[in-house]
Amino acid sequence: MKAHVTTESLAEGILARDHRAIARAITMVENESPKGPMLIRELFGRSGRAQIIGVTGAPGVGKSTLVDCMTTEWRRRQRTVGILAIDPTSPFSGGAVLGDRIRMQSHAGDPGVYVRSMASRGHLGGLAQATNDAVVILDAAGLDVVIVETVGVGQGEVDIVRTADVSIVVMVPGAGDDVQAIKAGIMEIADIFVVNKADREGADRAVNQIEAALMLQVYGPGEWCPPVFKAEAARGTGVAELLDAVAQFGERYERNRDRLRARAEVRLRETLSRQFLVRLERHDDMRVALQEAVERIVRRDVDPYTAAAEIMERAG
Amino acid sequence: MKAHVTTESLAEGILARDHRAIARAITMVENESPKGPMLIRELFGRSGRAQIIGVTGAPGVGKSTLVDCMTTEWRRRQRTVGILAIDPTSPFSGGAVLGDRIRMQSHAGDPGVYVRSMASRGHLGGLAQATNDAVVILDAAGLDVVIVETVGVGQGEVDIVRTADVSIVVMVPGAGDDVQAIKAGIMEIADIFVVNKADREGADRAVNQIEAALMLQVYGPGEWCPPVFKAEAARGTGVAELLDAVAQFGERYERNRDRLRARAEVRLRETLSRQFLVRLERHDDMRVALQEAVERIVRRDVDPYTAAAEIMERAG
Repeated sequence: MKAHVTTESLAEGILARDHRAIARAITMVENESPKGPMLIRELFGRSGRAQIIGVTGAPGVGKSTLVDCMTTEWRRRQRTVGILAIDPTSPFSGGAVLGDRIRMQSHAGDPGVYVRSMASRGHLGGLAQATNDAVVILDAAGLDVVIVETVGVGQGEVDIVRTADVSIVVMVPGAGDDVQAIKAGIMEIADIFVVNKADREGADRAVNQIEAALMLQVYGPGEWCPPVFKAEAARGTGVAELLDAVAQFGERYERNRDRLRARAEVRLRETLSRQFLVRLERHDDMRVALQEAVERIVRRDVDPYTAAAEIMERAG
Repeated sequence: MKAHVTTESLAEGILARDHRAIARAITMVENESPKGPMLIRELFGRSGRAQIIGVTGAPGVGKSTLVDCMTTEWRRRQRTVGILAIDPTSPFSGGAVLGDRIRMQSHAGDPGVYVRSMASRGHLGGLAQATNDAVVILDAAGLDVVIVETVGVGQGEVDIVRTADVSIVVMVPGAGDDVQAIKAGIMEIADIFVVNKADREGADRAVNQIEAALMLQVYGPGEWCPPVFKAEAARGTGVAELLDAVAQFGERYERNRDRLRARAEVRLRETLSRQFLVRLERHDDMRVALQEAVERIVRRDVDPYTAAAEIMERAG
């Protein structure tokens, strides 16, 4: 049956927010089907309306619970929500570790919420492309808010969160000293910080440390200095305030096109790189040349720069 | 003065294991100086002898201390060691968070140990290239063991650890339940597991959980099933056994060229992608075309796939 679904009819289903069509489309881009780019071509002009929220943080900080609470609050505010949870692939489960089954049971049956886990594969930029495509699908489906939740592993993920409309970094008290928190390398991408599990000892200290670190930065007039919120996602505490800040950031920066441009540029460069390699390997002789170059590099007969330059030369 | 140093004389200094030459060369590749590739061309044929060890794990598991102990043990065994510590860039420090200053004080003054922190920048594959180049430099300098230590953030880092000769994943007891440990997404890249801080409660349970997870995998005859070690790096406990396993893995897989091929292939593909984009932007009209395409994507006048295909077409 799948074979008979054209990208046109699939696009129609997505625009009508049919969950089965959305699911099928995301599987298509996740599997890097050649039909994926065709579908995105159909949908892209109908996307661009959703607010894209990146939520990231180390494993165990309670991102999923927080996203769940945020979703409940957004629904209360009459907004529809799409969630993409990027789960690092485990070799032991053969796919996304925390599947849709154990996620977001609370929104099951609500047509205004679409939840999807995607496995992070770690292949040559494929994750960034698949996630960006999935965001376009949910956006075109007319969902008001699209949340991309990641553990911050993988450059693709970091780029996604960095170029979201709003980036939320979630931490917990006592996860280590301040140096370790900064070492996690995710502070630089935050528009908003959340210290979750704020009932734990050291919550105020964690807030103070983040604020102290932020004070080392210089913010100009009109610049956004990331606010730090305490939350107890398990009880829903602090979530309304967080959503107000998200809305405020969204309003202030709606016309700030820097993120949009950065997202478009990262996307275009990745797509170009991939298309270049795909086109290269379409030619039998270039495929052979690539394999020969790999063997020569292994034998140290040639360095990677010279080998690449030689292939570029042959490719014209 | 720097301007007068040719890549030839710099290469000579590196081959003589002059620490100042090594430092200068790594800064060169870290800053993506155009001289970097020239230098690697000089050195590449002289590299390929070192054993490259990837050490990864979440912040706070004690990687630096473990690497310090391993270095002490290798020195006792008359082997020279180079260490590249990839620190996620923080906007607050403007560079690597944990600098060389607070690292590895214990080996200061030992000419058989070279330690260097590199900031992870997260730009378009630049980290992977810089790190790979730095490994070539340390390898060509004749260091027997080159350790690349990362927190496992960033695709570039993951690729580096994945394609090292031996990959060590460091965990601690009680860092969360088993699902969270697997969720960290780093289990699949391990040749050897270390449960560090093994004096803590739950160390045996952590070992059992990792071994249980490994038992879900099927290992064929002669295949390497990752061993799990307990260590207390702060006291040096368990480190000799760990190094024996590293040596054993190295011996068994010395002629296994899969890693070398994977490393060479990832490297060649990244270099090709980068060279393609650099060459593209060398032409004024293509640079303009790229910027125009970005603006059109932002306005949703064109999707990224069509825009990239158009640019590929123009580039010939």
